[in-house]
Amino acid sequence: MSEQDYRNLPVKDLSFINDIKSMAVIGTSKKRNFFFLRSHAESFKGNVYAVNPTVKDIPGFDNNNIYSSLKDIPDQVDFVFIAVHHNRILQVIDDCVEKGVKLASIFTAEFSDSGTEKGELLEKELIKRADNKIRFLGPNGLGIFHPKLGIAWRKKFPTEVGDIAFLAQSGGLCNLVIYGSEERGVYLSKAFSFGNGTDLDFVDLLAYLSEDPDTNLILSYLEGIKDGRGKDLKKILEYNKKPIVIVKGGQTKSGATAAKTHTASISGDYQMWKAIFEQNNIIVVNSLEELISTAYIFNIYGFFELQNIAVLTSSGGYGVIISDIIAKHGIAIPQFSTEIQQKIDSLYYALGTSSKNPLDVSAQIFNSDIIYKIIDQVLSDEKIDGLIVDLPSFIFNRELTIGDMDNYEDNILEALTLGHKHNKPLFTIIPHVGYQEDRQRVYSKLVEKRVPVFCNPIELIPLLPKISNYKRKTKTK
Amino acid sequence: MSEQDYRNLPVKDLSFINDIKSMAVIGTSKKRNFFFLRSHAESFKGNVYAVNPTVKDIPGFDNNNIYSSLKDIPDQVDFVFIAVHHNRILQVIDDCVEKGVKLASIFTAEFSDSGTEKGELLEKELIKRADNKIRFLGPNGLGIFHPKLGIAWRKKFPTEVGDIAFLAQSGGLCNLVIYGSEERGVYLSKAFSFGNGTDLDFVDLLAYLSEDPDTNLILSYLEGIKDGRGKDLKKILEYNKKPIVIVKGGQTKSGATAAKTHTASISGDYQMWKAIFEQNNIIVVNSLEELISTAYIFNIYGFFELQNIAVLTSSGGYGVIISDIIAKHGIAIPQFSTEIQQKIDSLYYALGTSSKNPLDVSAQIFNSDIIYKIIDQVLSDEKIDGLIVDLPSFIFNRELTIGDMDNYEDNILEALTLGHKHNKPLFTIIPHVGYQEDRQRVYSKLVEKRVPVFCNPIELIPLLPKISNYKRKTKTK
Repeated sequence: MSEQDYRNLPVKDLSFINDIKSMAVIGTSKKRNFFFLRSHAESFKGNVYAVNPTVKDIPGFDNNNIYSSLKDIPDQVDFVFIAVHHNRILQVIDDCVEKGVKLASIFTAEFSDSGTEKGELLEKELIKRADNKIRFLGPNGLGIFHPKLGIAWRKKFPTEVGDIAFLAQSGGLCNLVIYGSEERGVYLSKAFSFGNGTDLDFVDLLAYLSEDPDTNLILSYLEGIKDGRGKDLKKILEYNKKPIVIVKGGQTKSGATAAKTHTASISGDYQMWKAIFEQNNIIVVNSLEELISTAYIFNIYGFFELQNIAVLTSSGGYGVIISDIIAKHGIAIPQFSTEIQQKIDSLYYALGTSSKNPLDVSAQIFNSDIIYKIIDQVLSDEKIDGLIVDLPSFIFNRELTIGDMDNYEDNILEALTLGHKHNKPLFTIIPHVGYQEDRQRVYSKLVEKRVPVFCNPIELIPLLPKISNYKRKTKTK
Repeated sequence: MSEQDYRNLPVKDLSFINDIKSMAVIGTSKKRNFFFLRSHAESFKGNVYAVNPTVKDIPGFDNNNIYSSLKDIPDQVDFVFIAVHHNRILQVIDDCVEKGVKLASIFTAEFSDSGTEKGELLEKELIKRADNKIRFLGPNGLGIFHPKLGIAWRKKFPTEVGDIAFLAQSGGLCNLVIYGSEERGVYLSKAFSFGNGTDLDFVDLLAYLSEDPDTNLILSYLEGIKDGRGKDLKKILEYNKKPIVIVKGGQTKSGATAAKTHTASISGDYQMWKAIFEQNNIIVVNSLEELISTAYIFNIYGFFELQNIAVLTSSGGYGVIISDIIAKHGIAIPQFSTEIQQKIDSLYYALGTSSKNPLDVSAQIFNSDIIYKIIDQVLSDEKIDGLIVDLPSFIFNRELTIGDMDNYEDNILEALTLGHKHNKPLFTIIPHVGYQEDRQRVYSKLVEKRVPVFCNPIELIPLLPKISNYKRKTKTK
């Protein structure tokens, strides 16, 4: 497809988004304690106005910025967040058009999502009144999270800016991804909750993100697309150069029924979707947790090919279980090269352990120098593409340890950064087995050091072949 | 099989275990800061003696209880924990036999586990010297955890006694299960780490636990059994009446290689194992985490049949994803009965939500009275066997909430106990999305209230059909 053909696709222009300088929240209500107004006002970097015909005083908010009507605001308003009752929406949209607002997030529900004819008619009328003079997200969505500009529909959304975008109809999922990413040291460039997708839909937003210079990875939860948009979607996916990770909702009959109720989405035949995903080298995961975990890995190591892995545990049995899970996911656990094996053997000193891959270091886990040297050797083996280290949280508990703990924790955590030195992914698994406080402290330190932590092998291992396949295919494309 | 035939099986008698009244730790070393001595001394309810020919003073330990040799101890010694170097093991075992010790845990390694001929010969000699006059666990294992008697090889093992037993060669896995169960409010009757299984092996210990009146659920990590023990195992499994949950190590070539290195176990053909498990209605899980989770569920609800489930989320998209995962595991998400549906409809007041199964309560999650009533209705529906509730941790954060939080948390947690009222399992999923402190507080409260919490649907949902199948089969047996 030529650049020219691509530019001619029926995709809406959103290039103005980064230039939003002022905003208003329309329909902020006392009943909800002005929730959406307060959230946006907390973080937005430009002027925020409140629009409500009956409210004159909002504690903690500059009352001079409260207006009865959008039209009364003396300045330009680029963006509005609308939370009025659905029977007022048309008037509000007319006002927005008249005022020259560029983008609206419509939180208001009871359009096609209600499943009623009345709702569907209202949605059609909404499109007509907007008349392509204003772009909008929703209705029945939470709109846009844009940390660089400080657009945030919820309080305490992270202010730090990253290079990962999330795209979903559902605002609830956006909340989980936004809060859940921050905990893992992952930050977003933008998130869109587009609700019913009446104006801006999955296709428009994906096209926008695939060319957004601030976004390097696109995450999405997708229920379905509107009739007639399939051809455009395929062309956009074909042209796209960025990695895309998708959870597809409605793969099963139960899921499809739920999706239909949720956003009136038609999930479509999953076999057809699978084919589209495969053709376009899209990484498909099965849950929101897997979506966040994939971003977590990308943020630290980027994507990589991983065919041969090493495992290091302090429990031989746990090593066997992990090995079975790894092998079932098509990854090999080869023996080390002769030279490396000899060096590792020479480092081992405890009996009843295994210096072979999977490594069972047993009580040697309490000797951080040895662990550092073993990991350094393992990752210098050309046959090994990455390493999984299992660390029970109680080894970091001072009352439970064997021997001297001074500097132990910092030293062992330093050993876990060796993945960066060798440019190979190193993953840690710290199971949830008591000692939450120790776990949490170590987890925070590892986030700082950019070492990914999982609490269960099943959170991590199924993602590794998916990432590898993606990487392999980009090479041959 | 007749009772008589069962009694004639070549299975070792362990009926004396509950009567252990005194113990000694042999080979406690200063280098490890007397770790195993201190651990046992911390919790054992009878006399603990230390045996070491060179140590005369152990800080914090009664020096009158230190002896150069086992034989010098004036009292009877029922149980010993042995951590001497392997070249001293035969002398120590001779002493034990002479002294009339009933049970030994042999931590010492470098027997058949070393893979050397020398090690194998030493193991054979060990059996010969023990001569069935003393029973032993190990070598290369951590032996027995028996909270009722206070036998515990590690510090801070729980002192509370439960009705679930764990059986594994690996001591490291025992540590993870023991600490990991406590965190979930699950307590053990006993755990055995039998290492190389030279004397007491998987078959003996399983037979013992299947008749132990203090044990109602048996968990095990199994690598393999010794040649010639298959016939006995099958008979014991046939006679057994208790639920057994197993993780089988060495299912794949990589896993089998690891198991061989770990404990010199021959994993055997997994297809054969699968057939044995199926014939004997054994619940097979894939990881240690699944094993602990199954015990967690059993401890709260027992086992149950679950064909039709309801889902309640505050995010429609999350509900769709969970529905897909549930459906893929063969569980139905039916619509509610007409009468119940009407009652639920009448409780809903927010727009843009779904009162159908899966329920999307959206912002109504902040109204604990309504949530209580909805859950009460759902569980009173005869068509519904259980409920999964998804709760993002940030709803419990006071700064982030919509509206008044007084008593909110306690009320919503109370609603989650309705599973007990209706005698149907109710599970919560609280994803790891920031607000760890809130999550941890809520988690602890739910442990108290006996409501199971998972952090990821994939930790829970695959277990439900396994538990259901077990229950269904016990009915037809």
